Amino acid sequence: MNLRYHAFDLELKHTFTIARGSQDVSRVVFIELEHDGITGYGEASPSERFNETPDSVIEYIKRIDIEKISNLFNIERNVAYLESLSSKDYSARAAIDIAMYDWVGKALGVPLYKLWGLSPDDTPKTSFTIGIDSPDVLEKKVREAEEYPFLKIKLDGTNDEEIMKTIRSVTDKVLRVDVNEGWTIREIALEKMLWLQREGVEFIEQPMPAQQLLDTAWLRERASLPVIADENVVSVYDVPKLRGAFDGINIKLMKCGGLNAALKMIYSAKSMKMKIMMGCMVESSVAISAAAQLSPLLDYADLDGNLLIKNDPFEGVTVHEGRLVLPDKPGIGVFKKGG
Amino acid sequence: MNLRYHAFDLELKHTFTIARGSQDVSRVVFIELEHDGITGYGEASPSERFNETPDSVIEYIKRIDIEKISNLFNIERNVAYLESLSSKDYSARAAIDIAMYDWVGKALGVPLYKLWGLSPDDTPKTSFTIGIDSPDVLEKKVREAEEYPFLKIKLDGTNDEEIMKTIRSVTDKVLRVDVNEGWTIREIALEKMLWLQREGVEFIEQPMPAQQLLDTAWLRERASLPVIADENVVSVYDVPKLRGAFDGINIKLMKCGGLNAALKMIYSAKSMKMKIMMGCMVESSVAISAAAQLSPLLDYADLDGNLLIKNDPFEGVTVHEGRLVLPDKPGIGVFKKGG
Repeated sequence: MNLRYHAFDLELKHTFTIARGSQDVSRVVFIELEHDGITGYGEASPSERFNETPDSVIEYIKRIDIEKISNLFNIERNVAYLESLSSKDYSARAAIDIAMYDWVGKALGVPLYKLWGLSPDDTPKTSFTIGIDSPDVLEKKVREAEEYPFLKIKLDGTNDEEIMKTIRSVTDKVLRVDVNEGWTIREIALEKMLWLQREGVEFIEQPMPAQQLLDTAWLRERASLPVIADENVVSVYDVPKLRGAFDGINIKLMKCGGLNAALKMIYSAKSMKMKIMMGCMVESSVAISAAAQLSPLLDYADLDGNLLIKNDPFEGVTVHEGRLVLPDKPGIGVFKKGG
Repeated sequence: MNLRYHAFDLELKHTFTIARGSQDVSRVVFIELEHDGITGYGEASPSERFNETPDSVIEYIKRIDIEKISNLFNIERNVAYLESLSSKDYSARAAIDIAMYDWVGKALGVPLYKLWGLSPDDTPKTSFTIGIDSPDVLEKKVREAEEYPFLKIKLDGTNDEEIMKTIRSVTDKVLRVDVNEGWTIREIALEKMLWLQREGVEFIEQPMPAQQLLDTAWLRERASLPVIADENVVSVYDVPKLRGAFDGINIKLMKCGGLNAALKMIYSAKSMKMKIMMGCMVESSVAISAAAQLSPLLDYADLDGNLLIKNDPFEGVTVHEGRLVLPDKPGIGVFKKGG
């Protein structure tokens, strides 16, 4: 078996700003897992929030003893081995997990959705994310996102009213709001929630810091807008802790460690009657197509990471009238452009 | 697509007694789902506790519009359709679910454990169940169960001391105790729990009636013996309700509606750090082999239903020195004897 990796700069179409900062380029690490003439593709999009960098991803990959994952069909064992090397390094583990699943799908000759008993006709529409920006750039971005029926608006507590007003001046689409922990005082957060309810927002994501779980529960009791956890949910063991504070969870492959963990989180959250959303980082079609394979199980999809970049080296899932379209190809369903 | 079914009497090696009654014969319903030249096998072992009979299973099967499940790969949709016909009829739905998975595994040419990323080397040892009986029959049964490292002892609150004493006089094996809701007064139940702890019992299953959930939580707080839910857990939505009252759950295909539901329950319970057990009814190798495909995910297996009968028409999973051995065959891995 052969495990190759290389860092790659994904170039963003627009500078992207959220509560934590801005970026023009996003460096990811691509991996290839080759065995028996089949190559599985994987991708890590490291997250600052978890102190991950492309270098830390590569450090992690170097620690893998590939003998220990040599039977790629034994995903459960292999995932446990990867976790035993580090309970963090989420995006690095996600890269290997995605590559293993891609390999298994290709070895069996089936797309992953088929392996999981899902129908490609059940994929949801994905939202398109509008980062924090000046009014004129916001207007431009909303106009460019015409194809997407749902917009996900980033707020950070500073310019919230202006941003919403600007966006509502250009569109009456369904809006989802992501605060990325940007509100810290619950009374103010409540006022904002009630205001966003009146603005016809569909749901609100992570309004308050993860450590303010009780404040979030307090908030949820007083507003009817569904509250989705993002920073509050990393591993599958976080899901049961969220009952009462959140109506749903936002699963990201780069946060939970891959498809295996994501599937477990989906089933766990569904048993608690929570809504399921899948989100992403800035990612190429490798990681987005992997996540999209699970999308028939979702209530909300926010899988637009590949739509934000201009030099995607891969092609896989596409978007038609806002809806995710799964390729009829084995594994995660991607191929290298010009390859 | 062709859906065939027929009732069949499984003959027990010994009369089998638990808290709810006795039986010599167990009538099951076998089904065959044939499509594209591939036949998937399924089995329903109807449960009195849910007012199911072989006739009610057949009534349910007759209501299925097979056009609605004609794409057998769409398990998630098909399972939802089956549930839409009846939220009960668990064993009938399990029969179809098992046959669908068997068909999918055969169509892809892989055993189900492989479809789920599991290793056949991780199967657990199964316990062997000793029903309630007179001391001399109990002694005989324990001696006959020599091959099995764990025994599951049935108690019902009437003769508990005598049964345990008889069994301990013949063996010092690890014992698991299943009360099937047989204890109703929590103070007496606690005394019995503490006594069984001293007897080296590994865990206790469903000590009190399902409706006495708070009493069970009270009990669990005061004893260290792990408490596993059986009658308290039917569907995946029951799992979150058990936190605090139980340490684990006993999943049965005939109770939850099949492999799809079982997989979801396993992941949900694991997210709550609960232990997972799979149990069974009196069943042939069809349903037992299906459950065994999931067994690498279990903490405790009690999959002996086919070992209790003398006219099993199928061959599939076997037991070697107590451990479940998964056949290297596609789907659930069974074939018809003499077929």
